[in-house]
This record gives sequence, structure tokens and C-alpha cells, in this order.
Amino acid sequence: VIDEVRRRARVSGPAWTASLLADRVLRVNVLGRWPERRVPYDALERQVLAILEAWRVREPEVVARHLLYADLHGIVSHGVAMLRHYAAGPFTLHAATEVVRDEGATAVVDGGGGLGHLPADRAMRLAIGKAREHGVGAVAVRHSGHFGAAGSYAALARDEGLIGIALTNVRDPAVVPTHGAEPRLGTNAIAFAARELMLDIATSTVSLGRAVARWRAGKRIPTGWAIDAHGRPVRSGRVANEQRRLTPLGSRPETSSHKGYGLAAMVEALTGVLTESAVGHFLVALDPARFGDGFDGRMDAFTASLRATRRLDPARAVLVPGDPERAAQQDRAARGIPLSRSVVEDLRLVAADAAVPFAL
Amino acid sequence: VIDEVRRRARVSGPAWTASLLADRVLRVNVLGRWPERRVPYDALERQVLAILEAWRVREPEVVARHLLYADLHGIVSHGVAMLRHYAAGPFTLHAATEVVRDEGATAVVDGGGGLGHLPADRAMRLAIGKAREHGVGAVAVRHSGHFGAAGSYAALARDEGLIGIALTNVRDPAVVPTHGAEPRLGTNAIAFAARELMLDIATSTVSLGRAVARWRAGKRIPTGWAIDAHGRPVRSGRVANEQRRLTPLGSRPETSSHKGYGLAAMVEALTGVLTESAVGHFLVALDPARFGDGFDGRMDAFTASLRATRRLDPARAVLVPGDPERAAQQDRAARGIPLSRSVVEDLRLVAADAAVPFAL
Repeated sequence: VIDEVRRRARVSGPAWTASLLADRVLRVNVLGRWPERRVPYDALERQVLAILEAWRVREPEVVARHLLYADLHGIVSHGVAMLRHYAAGPFTLHAATEVVRDEGATAVVDGGGGLGHLPADRAMRLAIGKAREHGVGAVAVRHSGHFGAAGSYAALARDEGLIGIALTNVRDPAVVPTHGAEPRLGTNAIAFAARELMLDIATSTVSLGRAVARWRAGKRIPTGWAIDAHGRPVRSGRVANEQRRLTPLGSRPETSSHKGYGLAAMVEALTGVLTESAVGHFLVALDPARFGDGFDGRMDAFTASLRATRRLDPARAVLVPGDPERAAQQDRAARGIPLSRSVVEDLRLVAADAAVPFAL
Repeated sequence: VIDEVRRRARVSGPAWTASLLADRVLRVNVLGRWPERRVPYDALERQVLAILEAWRVREPEVVARHLLYADLHGIVSHGVAMLRHYAAGPFTLHAATEVVRDEGATAVVDGGGGLGHLPADRAMRLAIGKAREHGVGAVAVRHSGHFGAAGSYAALARDEGLIGIALTNVRDPAVVPTHGAEPRLGTNAIAFAARELMLDIATSTVSLGRAVARWRAGKRIPTGWAIDAHGRPVRSGRVANEQRRLTPLGSRPETSSHKGYGLAAMVEALTGVLTESAVGHFLVALDPARFGDGFDGRMDAFTASLRATRRLDPARAVLVPGDPERAAQQDRAARGIPLSRSVVEDLRLVAADAAVPFAL
């Protein structure tokens, strides 16, 4: 905590530090255990827009849409809860996005060292146009930052009747290569969207956020999520978050953690390495009609067949990737977005820091 | 075993059945425990070519090259050991490959219901040409069959200085969706190649072949590889092979098996569903030069940094995906390809069945 406070203090000065410390104490001891409340989408969007506008973020409505995609779909770690990190983070918040290369079926968008939402949105829209023209479009984003939920960009292509793929690396190493003792890769993400199938995953077994959530709920984390410097399982979410030694998907060498490690390395190659950036994204749109007719109907039959899989437990459905997010979206569109008290208090502080009214 | 014999007997008649039964008895009781022998690459290639030519496989040298890629790189389950399955399998061995659609950066190759090696080779070569012209090429293969190791096709692009991706589904379901009681997906594979990074993985925790290999070696399989119809861990490789209920990468719900399941579904969408085929492939080539200069050097620095990860056990190196296969390739190119006695005896039977001399 102290290191984090020091780092943020450098960026944001003493007022922020004091509020952050107070907030931390509150968060850990009280707020994390308070019940959540529901906020209508429009009200949350207005609040977020006010903050983004105060930060002079360009095209704030685009950024807000991708931020709120996460909250609306139940991916709470990647939505408005990130605003306090963005306020403190190493971003040029009002950075300009620029298409620096555009040729054939590929392009490169420069994010100017700002948040990733706007350049990734622009990149996927470019990729969609290229998929219409060439059948496939692949657009990289360089010099970017956190862009929220990867699925939000894959969904742009899907909503146009295409197949969408969105990859991102994550700046801070938190994943340990198989047989290694230290983190070398971020929780690099893969999103894939086609009709109702929406895969949106980190290539680690779990995110740091899930480990922390267990700790806040007073529960231990399962063996296989995180290790210590000696390779022993870490069972405390708090310790897992401090040590930042998450396992790659597969958890242990004998259950093929080298595969999750390899997937994380693949994503790093196509994002950070390809674009020579600390944070980069890679967006692909693909037109299924170029490969034959009837893709939509076959996808729907495929996802229906997966849901019809005989169940281990009659009370527990076999889901298709994207089903939980779709259920959350339907619930939240109707009943509002649940925000924990700690997120509400974060937003209150961020709004105060940005000198905009707090209206939630 | 009986079901398998019945199935093959339908295809290949009584002589095959008798030899298969004898072979099974030998394999299980004796051959699996005999030491392997080394066969020079050229000698093995000549033997394979003789068989493929007798089968009237088109462009047998291309098929042989992809088959032997697997043996040369230590992926023994996907190389010449497959020939006995190809002989018995549901393939039109002399099928013609045809480019049925070719437009912009995409194309479709029809495999004619034969083996997948030739159409996948043709598809990746098409994709490479498209990557040179458009920056990216994406080519699907429909009506195909088993194509060996996916990495063999990704390597074609890599060897041209590009990034290569090869995906395939697998005909027979062997992977159980999370919370499901029955297999619904094949051990669908993902290969990605860029410079020294070569990821070539099934999206299940392990392949059936690895479970069987444990059984032959007299060892139990780890918890997390396979389950029975009630979700309980299977610890016998023989039972795992019979039941065909492998776990998706991630193994258990609490260690995110939904991610491996989702990756398998993603591959199925881009192969079988996209191409309306029992077996389909999806090949992508990408020109890194379209996204900026210096990719090769950065990739090499990236893979070097992964290998330099501090080790848990000083005696156990942190590897880059592709390192084990590269080590196998160097060893086998110099010292010959190790073949187990059971594979040698398989090849002897396949050669006899095809009425070609056996020269190993």
C-alpha cells in the first residue's frame, strides 16, 4: 500500500495521497463488506462523462461507452472501478489518437500514450471496414494504455455481422512462466466474438482482481491461482495481489500451465512486441460470408448444441462463453448497474479531484 | 478395443481386423515397453512416400514433409504413428484439393474429404501470398481430415519471415464443456509461430495420446486431465482413453476450465462451423513489417528475456514455447528419429496392407 501511495503521490500530489489513504482504510475495513447499490446506466454514464470531460479526454462518449460495457456486462474489474487508477496512472489523459499507417488490409493506430479505449475503438472500426473490402482486417494499436474489457472491441465487429478478435497485453507483469520464480508477462487478454459466442479471458488462471475479491469476502483462494517465490501455492488473495505471481491458465506444469504461458506470450508478440509499446492492442475483423453462406445459422446451432450438453449437476447449466455476460447485461439494463460502496466512494473522490459534481 | 476393431473391420475387412487384433495384443503387452530405435529421416521419408504413393495420395512429398515434421520435432502422436489410423480412417486418401474461392485477403480450399496435409499446405501458401500483398491473409480449409501437427503450417509462414497461425478442429469429441457430463468438442488445436516462438497446443489439458502414454508406461495420470460421467477424476490413462472425457485447459471450474472450453469453442467456430465441415482448418499469415520495423529483433529480445526468467529450480530451465520441439529437431536431424517398436510394427502392417516393401 505504501509503495502505491508513494507512486500516486508523485503523480497527483498530497491531496490525492490523503484521500487515497483514507479511502484505503475505508475500503479494507468497511466498504468492501457493505452491500452494493444499483445505479441506472444513464446516470452512471453522465457521471463518467463529466469526469472524462474534466480530464479533457477526447471523444469522451466513446471512452464512456467502452468503460460502461464492462459494468453493464458484469466485468466489474474493467469498468468504472478503473477510473481511480486512470486518474493516478501513467497516462496522458487527453492524448490524441492518430492513424499512422493504413495500407491494404492492415493499419496502425497510435494511442499517444493515453487510455486505450479510443484508439482501440478506432482500430476496430478500421478493421471492420477492411474486412468488408478485403475479407479480413488486422489493425494494431501502439503507445496505448488500459482499454477496459477486450470483449467490448470484439463486440463492435460482431454487431456488424462479422467475427471480431481483440488482444491486449497488460503493462505490469503478474504472470509467472512455467518453471519460473518471477512474473514476466501481464494477464494478457484474448477476446473472440461471433454471434452469441463471446470469449473474453485473461491468459492467467484468474485476474488479480478475482484474488483480491476473495480476500475482501473473507475467503481463501484455491490452490492453483498464485504461487510464491518458491513455487508454493498462495492461499491468501491479499498476498497473491502483493506478490503478483499468478499462474498461467493451466495452473501447474502437470496440468499444462505451459499452454497458458504460451498463449500469454502469443498475445505479447502480437501486441507489445509487434507495436514496440509497453501497451499495445491487436484488433481483427473477419467477414464469415467470404468463407461460405449460412455462418450465422450454424453458429447458433453450435452454441445451442453446447448448451444442450448433458449436465453433471442438473441444477447447473452448461453455458456458452458470453452467456454470463449476456445475463448480466439483461439484468443491469433493466435494474441498473450494481456498484459496491467502495466503487461509489472511489467515484466520489475521483469526481472531487476532477472538480465535477458527484451525482450518484 | 472391440468397438474400434468393429469400426475398422467395416472399413478395411477381415485381414486388417486380424492384424489389428494381433497388433493390439502385442502393443499392450510387449511392444509398448520395448526400447525405441533410431531411423534416419531420409529412410523414414522413403518408407512413408512408398505408402502414400500406394494409397494414390496426391503430392505425397508434401504430405510426407508435414507428417515427418511432427516426428522430427518430437510430436510423436501426430507423425508417422498416424498412418495406421489414416489407413483405417474415414478419408478419401486420393482426394483432390481445390481452391474454391479466392478473393482479396481471403480464400477457401476444399480438401475433398481427404487427409488435411495437402489442402492445409496449399491454404497457408495462399495466405502467405496474401500477406505479402494485403498485409494479412486468412484461408479456410473445408471438407478436410487430420493434418498432423498444426505447427507445421504455422512454420511455413514463419519460415518466410511472417507470423503464422494455424487452427484445426478435431473430428471426434473428447473434451467436456465446463459443468458438462459428456464430450462435445475435439482437442481443437492452436498453433502460432513468430521467430523462435512456436506455440502448438491442444485446447484440452492434455491429448488422449498423453493419457495413453502414461498407461503404457505403467503410471497413473494426474488429477485434472480427465473425468468420468459423474465428474470424478479418472486416474487411469486407459480409462481416460475409453471414456474420452478430457478436461479443457484449466482442468476444473475453480481453475478456469471455462477458458480452455471457450478456446476450444473459438477454434470450432473458425474451422468446423465457418467451413460447414466435420474437419476444417483456418490458416493466417501476417506480415509484421506492415506494423513497423524491427519486429525480428524485438521478438528475439522477448524470447531471450523469457528464458532469462529466474528459475524455481536451478536445474530446470524456463523455456519458450517451441524450445522443446527445436531441441528434438536438432537431436533427431543428427541422430535419427526414435520410433517405438509399436510404431515400427504399425508401419510394417500398413506397408503390408498397401503392398509396398518394408525397409525400416
